[in-house]
Amino acid sequence: MPRVVVDVLLKPEILDPQGQAIERALPRLGFAGISDVRQGKHFELTVDDDVDDVEGLVRKVADTLLANPVIEDFTVDVQS
Amino acid sequence: MPRVVVDVLLKPEILDPQGQAIERALPRLGFAGISDVRQGKHFELTVDDDVDDVEGLVRKVADTLLANPVIEDFTVDVQS
Repeated sequence: MPRVVVDVLLKPEILDPQGQAIERALPRLGFAGISDVRQGKHFELTVDDDVDDVEGLVRKVADTLLANPVIEDFTVDVQS
Repeated sequence: MPRVVVDVLLKPEILDPQGQAIERALPRLGFAGISDVRQGKHFELTVDDDVDDVEGLVRKVADTLLANPVIEDFTVDVQS
C-alpha cells in the first residue's frame, strides 16, 4: 500500500517564531553556520491499494485537515 | 549554500495521539482509505558554505535541539 509523506511549512512571507527561536538557540548551544531555520509539520500516512488517485486524495486531505492554506504551503510525496 | 531538511517522527513503538486524532477525523470529513497516520516535525535550515561536514553538523543539531532521541527518530536530507 502506498505510503505518502506530506510536509507543511508556513508560507515564506509568514513570520515563523518557532524557527527563529531555534536559530537564536543554536549559537548558545555552540553551533555556528546555520541560518534561515523554518519549522513545519511532517505527516506520513498509508493509502489503501484500491484508491485510484492517491496523490489527489492526499492533496484534498492536506488542504482540508493537515494544512491551513491561508498561511501554509504543503508538498505531497507518494512513496512506493 | 546547502539547504537541509530534517524530519522528526515519534519512534514506531511510541503512541502518536495527534496522528490518531487525524485518522479518526478523516471519515467524519468524508475521506476513506487512509490509515496509519503519524505526525511529526519538519525543519528546513541553511548551512554556510564554509562548513565541511554539513550532514554531521545538522545531525548533531537534530540530536541536541530538534528531536528528543529518547522517543523520536529523525532523518537528515542535504539538498543542493
